[in-house]
Amino acid sequence: MREKITLSLIRRGGWCGDWPTMAAMSEPELSPSATTIPSTPFTEAERAAVYRAIYERRDMRHFAGGVVDEAVLLRLLRAAHHAPSVGFMQPWRFIRIKNAALRQAIHGLVEEERVRTARALGAREEDFMQLKVQGVLDAAEVLVVAMPPGREAHIFGRRTLPEMDIASSGCAIQNLWLAARAEGLGMGWVSIFDPQALAELLQMPAGAHPLGVLCLGPVDGYYAEPMLQQEKWASRAPLQDMLMDDLWDASRIAPPPAGKQHGA
Amino acid sequence: MREKITLSLIRRGGWCGDWPTMAAMSEPELSPSATTIPSTPFTEAERAAVYRAIYERRDMRHFAGGVVDEAVLLRLLRAAHHAPSVGFMQPWRFIRIKNAALRQAIHGLVEEERVRTARALGAREEDFMQLKVQGVLDAAEVLVVAMPPGREAHIFGRRTLPEMDIASSGCAIQNLWLAARAEGLGMGWVSIFDPQALAELLQMPAGAHPLGVLCLGPVDGYYAEPMLQQEKWASRAPLQDMLMDDLWDASRIAPPPAGKQHGA
Repeated sequence: MREKITLSLIRRGGWCGDWPTMAAMSEPELSPSATTIPSTPFTEAERAAVYRAIYERRDMRHFAGGVVDEAVLLRLLRAAHHAPSVGFMQPWRFIRIKNAALRQAIHGLVEEERVRTARALGAREEDFMQLKVQGVLDAAEVLVVAMPPGREAHIFGRRTLPEMDIASSGCAIQNLWLAARAEGLGMGWVSIFDPQALAELLQMPAGAHPLGVLCLGPVDGYYAEPMLQQEKWASRAPLQDMLMDDLWDASRIAPPPAGKQHGA
Repeated sequence: MREKITLSLIRRGGWCGDWPTMAAMSEPELSPSATTIPSTPFTEAERAAVYRAIYERRDMRHFAGGVVDEAVLLRLLRAAHHAPSVGFMQPWRFIRIKNAALRQAIHGLVEEERVRTARALGAREEDFMQLKVQGVLDAAEVLVVAMPPGREAHIFGRRTLPEMDIASSGCAIQNLWLAARAEGLGMGWVSIFDPQALAELLQMPAGAHPLGVLCLGPVDGYYAEPMLQQEKWASRAPLQDMLMDDLWDASRIAPPPAGKQHGA
């Protein structure tokens, strides 16, 4: 079955009519009689592959141009679409930016917000401005992720936590990211833009909610450690500082983020 | 290196002092001289393992009791902690519920909100009440995920999209979920509770933000398809309805979710 998932051909109607390879896109299928999948652990090698994807995934800002094979792109998007979602609402939509002028305009929005964020950072303005966001121009593909209008109708798991649509979309993007690592591609999630301006640029209806600009494509290599750690912006906290037993324990939490964030 | 990631021993100080196996918990390490990881695709078998985890992960509500080996639990939490986060803010905290009375109290909060959600669903009240949330009582482990106070100091990637902390936490939970599938464990993400009441119960400080109650542990099997699809609550949308080119295209989007959600 695993082989079938990875290799299965694409079977459905085209994305926008001009993608012949979409013609056979399919969801993975189980035997109709199966009601459960055995809960056996993966083999050691399979587990290692899953952890490898998790540990080697990076938020990339440097891309090597090139192209993403359409069949690979669809595998990534299908992986994203198999994320969990609250009440199975599937709140993610992916807009593939094919038009070069539109990509330039998105880059422009990011540059505008980059300057505004830098100013708001005060003492760290210069550090921040060193961190270029070239991915929008250089990556083989740019995908805008947005949530559709009408989400307020979904109250299953959202009556008291309406933000669960965002959390679900985060899961979808993480699936895409891990699959991209497995395929040897890099991805960066850019959230430095005015969402209202991006929504207008892409003619989104009222109530749509843009969540990110994903830069995706070939890279020369993945950063050995997270780029923001390499650049001394921040470093990974010890795992223990993330863990508590039973009750919140302020003594276990690392120094307040504000100090770290704005410190030298 | 892959083997090292999966098998590496635990090296740091205890979680709360009473977990001797925490004594050697380590992050995966790269050779200090490495600045990049080659961007070669995974082997076919490795890729298949990653996609298998993505496609076989389920939001589980049925658990088989038992225990989660502590070394496995730490592998899962370490996987979660290696998620991407906006500006590397690492907004996730995991509270392991060890106290039985506390777990009962959390179950009580979920039951209260379940009734309220059912009423709010109107026509689908009965369908919804059929969907039990026994995981909080039956799962080997219960982990509460919450974000710490002080997040407003992090404006990198959040000046215009403050919800990126939630999206990042979603990525961490998805890592945990996929790793749990690889380990042969089930996980369910419960978001049916009053976050204020849960925050008070666990003595969270003002500004902390609970995001979910994760039920984790052995299961008899994974649902062959998502449980809410098996129960005819909702079904997976065709992938093409999630995809657009360049501009928002309302014609490509499936019937409005409200119709689906509240229909028969």
